[in-house]
Amino acid sequence: MKVIKFGGTSLADGPQLEKVIAIIDADATRQVVTVSAPGKRFSGDTKVTDLLLQYAQAAINGDDTQAIVAEIAARYQAIATYFHVDSTAIMPKIIEQLQHLAKQHYPSFDYLYAAFAGHGELLNAQLIAFILQATGHNARFVSPKELGMQTTGAPRAATLAEISYQKMAWFTLASDEIIVVPGFFAYDEHGYMNTFKRGGSDITGAILARGLKATVYENFTDVSSIYAVSPKIVANPAPIAKMTYREMRELAYAGFAVFSDEAIVPVIKAGIPINVRNTNEPAAPGTLIVPENEIATTHAITGIASDDRFATLYLHRYLLNKEIGFTRRLLDILYRHGISYEHMPTGIDDLSIIFDKSLTSRAQFEAMIADIRTEIQPDILEWHTDYALIMVVGEGMQEMHGAVANIIEPLTEAGINISMVNQGASRISVMLGLPADQVDAAVKVIYEQVY
Amino acid sequence: MKVIKFGGTSLADGPQLEKVIAIIDADATRQVVTVSAPGKRFSGDTKVTDLLLQYAQAAINGDDTQAIVAEIAARYQAIATYFHVDSTAIMPKIIEQLQHLAKQHYPSFDYLYAAFAGHGELLNAQLIAFILQATGHNARFVSPKELGMQTTGAPRAATLAEISYQKMAWFTLASDEIIVVPGFFAYDEHGYMNTFKRGGSDITGAILARGLKATVYENFTDVSSIYAVSPKIVANPAPIAKMTYREMRELAYAGFAVFSDEAIVPVIKAGIPINVRNTNEPAAPGTLIVPENEIATTHAITGIASDDRFATLYLHRYLLNKEIGFTRRLLDILYRHGISYEHMPTGIDDLSIIFDKSLTSRAQFEAMIADIRTEIQPDILEWHTDYALIMVVGEGMQEMHGAVANIIEPLTEAGINISMVNQGASRISVMLGLPADQVDAAVKVIYEQVY
Repeated sequence: MKVIKFGGTSLADGPQLEKVIAIIDADATRQVVTVSAPGKRFSGDTKVTDLLLQYAQAAINGDDTQAIVAEIAARYQAIATYFHVDSTAIMPKIIEQLQHLAKQHYPSFDYLYAAFAGHGELLNAQLIAFILQATGHNARFVSPKELGMQTTGAPRAATLAEISYQKMAWFTLASDEIIVVPGFFAYDEHGYMNTFKRGGSDITGAILARGLKATVYENFTDVSSIYAVSPKIVANPAPIAKMTYREMRELAYAGFAVFSDEAIVPVIKAGIPINVRNTNEPAAPGTLIVPENEIATTHAITGIASDDRFATLYLHRYLLNKEIGFTRRLLDILYRHGISYEHMPTGIDDLSIIFDKSLTSRAQFEAMIADIRTEIQPDILEWHTDYALIMVVGEGMQEMHGAVANIIEPLTEAGINISMVNQGASRISVMLGLPADQVDAAVKVIYEQVY
Repeated sequence: MKVIKFGGTSLADGPQLEKVIAIIDADATRQVVTVSAPGKRFSGDTKVTDLLLQYAQAAINGDDTQAIVAEIAARYQAIATYFHVDSTAIMPKIIEQLQHLAKQHYPSFDYLYAAFAGHGELLNAQLIAFILQATGHNARFVSPKELGMQTTGAPRAATLAEISYQKMAWFTLASDEIIVVPGFFAYDEHGYMNTFKRGGSDITGAILARGLKATVYENFTDVSSIYAVSPKIVANPAPIAKMTYREMRELAYAGFAVFSDEAIVPVIKAGIPINVRNTNEPAAPGTLIVPENEIATTHAITGIASDDRFATLYLHRYLLNKEIGFTRRLLDILYRHGISYEHMPTGIDDLSIIFDKSLTSRAQFEAMIADIRTEIQPDILEWHTDYALIMVVGEGMQEMHGAVANIIEPLTEAGINISMVNQGASRISVMLGLPADQVDAAVKVIYEQVY
């Protein structure tokens, strides 16, 4: 049995859902389908989830909500109409649930927002199950609750309670049955709808694959492959046919964000392969992401990712490395300011810290730097905000001599000055640091060298 | 005015002291001389300091001390005899001070050992001042106390109280006067003799250079130069004519131990050049160690040092880098076991820690590893005890493109697999990590490439 997941753009309208149904029909083992809310149909369109959040805001404000409810219902109605199904059997139920949202009591605004947002998936799963039935499939809607999924944590940043997997093991699926499960949410122990912390329906798909013991988790997106390098930097880059979980993870760190890599932890724990595929090109084999022990390395470098979301702090102080607890004192300052760091290369009397700018405000950084100046009293302190990292990733690097030289040599010849080389912490990657304005040029050079 | 320092082998016997006096005579600005205790005269000989420690042990045990006192006195007597001076004017004082050592009260054994050990330098400085006078020099013995030097800290691991420099500024030197100051010790605020933590007479020389405002600190040893690479690895390596403090520091970290690099902090703070010279080849210019701003870079690489005193721990855990405070938890385990680390290269889900084996016992490491297994639960944990670091150091690397590639490429060609590359924390060095059994071969390859 395969778990298949479709994102919002794959379900934006009737023609898109038609492709999805063809994909389901093409493989009888695609029995567990998890769906997002309908996404944007065109650039400038509004996703159903965003309409639901507007609806939530209007309900809180006590504004009239008739128009927004009608707009949301119209999105579902348009899909039903496209398939010529008897919408009187489904639309009144959808509208009733939408209206009921504004009449319920919620313990807090967070619970309210979670419930409104989660209904995008809930109602879409109901509609798709109905359309599948109407088009002759043995399909039914299955709630996360019926499966045994239970959340824990904050209502809009929930995670799955581990106990859920024991409950899910009891769920049985008839041999020709298709179930449609809404993504993005489940219910907590009190029955409130909570949405997951990260990854929307990606995480639900991963949970279903693990909990229902799928042979593969097919994640349908709008790209036919993960590429060895970003098509924004290199035209027509090589597709990656197969990669390992950890290669994916290292590439995702530096900008290869096909899906939230944390969302797929459940399948990684279960050792289930992930197949990234394209709803718009279903015949393409896509990219298969497998456990480490399953791959036969064909080339040393699998992919090259880069990201310029970083900043770097350089400290120099004579006899720095002999001061016991120096790093702890420095980390205490970071901790006090609520700042986490990405990497910290150390020299003898020097130390650099690389930060993710997206996680911390400029004011926080400035306060931290002021404290470092006062408490650590470095001889030299330099702060650079336009810093990029390149990750060159490949399982094959482990057995290959000279991977670093092969990567750095052509950069040197091209006159690109790499300010940091970090090789050795991870066996399957080399991390390079450089000024943000040189990163695209550097990625091109490396790609041309290794492919 | 120059401060000059002579180590124990330069003062081991009469012929050696004769060379020292010739060095003093060769330059009228060599007015401040700091001396060690007489060292080994030949392989298998015992240094006076070690004789004094035997004497201390005998005194503690209540054993007869006559023989050991006679043996120590004989060392000084032999030097006096060599110069044909009237030793009746100095030897009774030396013997009296030696005998008095065993009759004094000490607050603890540490104070006792410090006093016994320090007398090697004290009595030698008195003897040398006497010989200089007897050979027609305007010389005198000056005690650290007279200069204003005062210690703080533990009796056998003292440091100079910062206030000392204010007192030393008042000391004046006649234009043709030579003063002889014993190295290795000074007195604490209660008048007890304390010995310095590190570097013996090297530290006294550095303190004198700073406190008395020397133009240069000449550190006489038994090598004519610091070499670009260890003569144990490469035959007849290139001498280093000039290097910066921080180049020296980075090279010292990985085994270039001409003198304790921490001992010379006072001259570094004062920006005074250090001239490493050879007592046995006084005409050789030696190696000049200067502040960063004084050097005109002539080549990119100044030196290559290596050391195999390291061990490395590798940890892999999925989603490691998203766990807030992970590094702090890890450092807390190290701290709890009293273990400091040298470097910690981090990947995305991987982390290596490099330890100095000489600082921690095997049992301590094993206890730490057990706790890491239990508390951190890594997916992979690997511990390698035979690990070496190579430091390739040069101020010129800052302005040079491709230093790393130039270093790594020939290693790759030679089939040497570098398991860690750390470039970027320090701007003037590249650190390489590799198995200990490959380190000498790697150093040779790098030296041949860059020289």
